[in-house]
Amino acid sequence: MTNIYDKESDYLRPGERLDDLERNGYRIIQNREKFCFGMDAVLLSWFAKVEEGEVAIDLGTGTGIIPILLKARTKGEHFTGLEIQEDMAEMAGRSVKYNNLENDIEIVTGDIKEASHIFRKASFDVVTSNPPYMNDTHGLKNPDEAKAISRHEVLCTLEDVIENATKLLKPMGRFYMIHRPHRLVEIIEVMKNKNLMPKRMRFVHPYADKDANMVLIEGIRGGKPMMKLEAPIIVYKGVNEYTDQIKKIYQE
Amino acid sequence: MTNIYDKESDYLRPGERLDDLERNGYRIIQNREKFCFGMDAVLLSWFAKVEEGEVAIDLGTGTGIIPILLKARTKGEHFTGLEIQEDMAEMAGRSVKYNNLENDIEIVTGDIKEASHIFRKASFDVVTSNPPYMNDTHGLKNPDEAKAISRHEVLCTLEDVIENATKLLKPMGRFYMIHRPHRLVEIIEVMKNKNLMPKRMRFVHPYADKDANMVLIEGIRGGKPMMKLEAPIIVYKGVNEYTDQIKKIYQE
Repeated sequence: MTNIYDKESDYLRPGERLDDLERNGYRIIQNREKFCFGMDAVLLSWFAKVEEGEVAIDLGTGTGIIPILLKARTKGEHFTGLEIQEDMAEMAGRSVKYNNLENDIEIVTGDIKEASHIFRKASFDVVTSNPPYMNDTHGLKNPDEAKAISRHEVLCTLEDVIENATKLLKPMGRFYMIHRPHRLVEIIEVMKNKNLMPKRMRFVHPYADKDANMVLIEGIRGGKPMMKLEAPIIVYKGVNEYTDQIKKIYQE
Repeated sequence: MTNIYDKESDYLRPGERLDDLERNGYRIIQNREKFCFGMDAVLLSWFAKVEEGEVAIDLGTGTGIIPILLKARTKGEHFTGLEIQEDMAEMAGRSVKYNNLENDIEIVTGDIKEASHIFRKASFDVVTSNPPYMNDTHGLKNPDEAKAISRHEVLCTLEDVIENATKLLKPMGRFYMIHRPHRLVEIIEVMKNKNLMPKRMRFVHPYADKDANMVLIEGIRGGKPMMKLEAPIIVYKGVNEYTDQIKKIYQE
């Protein structure tokens, strides 16, 4: 235990905390003032498939949670996280170092809109993204704020994410995204227009009898239109009581 | 009972049968050799909303099941059923007469592709359709066969249905369709392109942990893109055992 506290003091800056991911002993550095990962990151890393030997990139990686969870869950060869906010990228880099994953995960500071210049085109088997959900940027007090950048399309749009995902993917490469169902028409239209065909979806409902509040979607670069609509994910069976399905997803 | 048998003999042709809809005492004439309605018709008539005073049309009405169920379930003012197959339309007309619904339901023989010439444009509040699901017409032994016409896009495509639905609808009029999820990308793309914006969807799963095999979708002529993804419908909880949800839908 002394060892861990020593390490914490080396790795943490003021306002940051170190959270246990309960996978391979991995931990992640987060800052509540900026952005902490939620269930969406866990669901996306569960929904995404990275096969042995494959390389993956996460667009807008924030704390680096998706590459770290994918490293824990899959047999992928290498994972990259692209993040535009310098302080977030720097913090994600410290999480990678803390877990001794420098050979497996690289955090790159950069803009999703420049992704196909930063990286070689058609060089990834898998692209993941948990992009900002909101396209109404009205009423934001401070559009430079880290939480706003993570939640609203301040710095990049859904179209930017999808366009650059397609450019980065090898032919027949896979794109995995989590987003809000209310934007489904736009998501499907943009993906199809950018040649990233939607192939598989799952909706996430807070309760079995409630509207979905998240959608998991897989697209294939150059795929044919044939949708597989998988079983719904139900989060709660009672107040603050997770379903067995969600408990299993957290453990898998 | 004697009365009913007398009536049956008046209304039924060889091979036909009279089925109780368990709503308002309504019955429907069906012919097993041609096409019998299934759960999809029940789900569509439950999903569709026809308000008091509104007029509705069902494109490709077959036996007339949708107009008859909508008449039973809603306070709509008038219902039309359009059916291209003369013998089916004639049979649907006999069901309407049998139920004494001639003032409420009109069955018209005609082609969906000609619908905006047969009827006045922008004259319906609601359009419903349970169109052929399959767009692979390969391997059909007899493309004129009634079952093939009901199930495969022999005589009209998804685009024909949606294009003509839009023409028939008043501005902000509502379109309700049941279809197969594997064609979802095409459904959403065509609806959006024809200005029939997808606004609400529900997926139907045979079991809670299985892929969806039906999708209910509502579109609004000239609506804005904002999808409401409602709670899933689960059909069975055990072998041949309906969920309470489905039992309720059948009774509502």
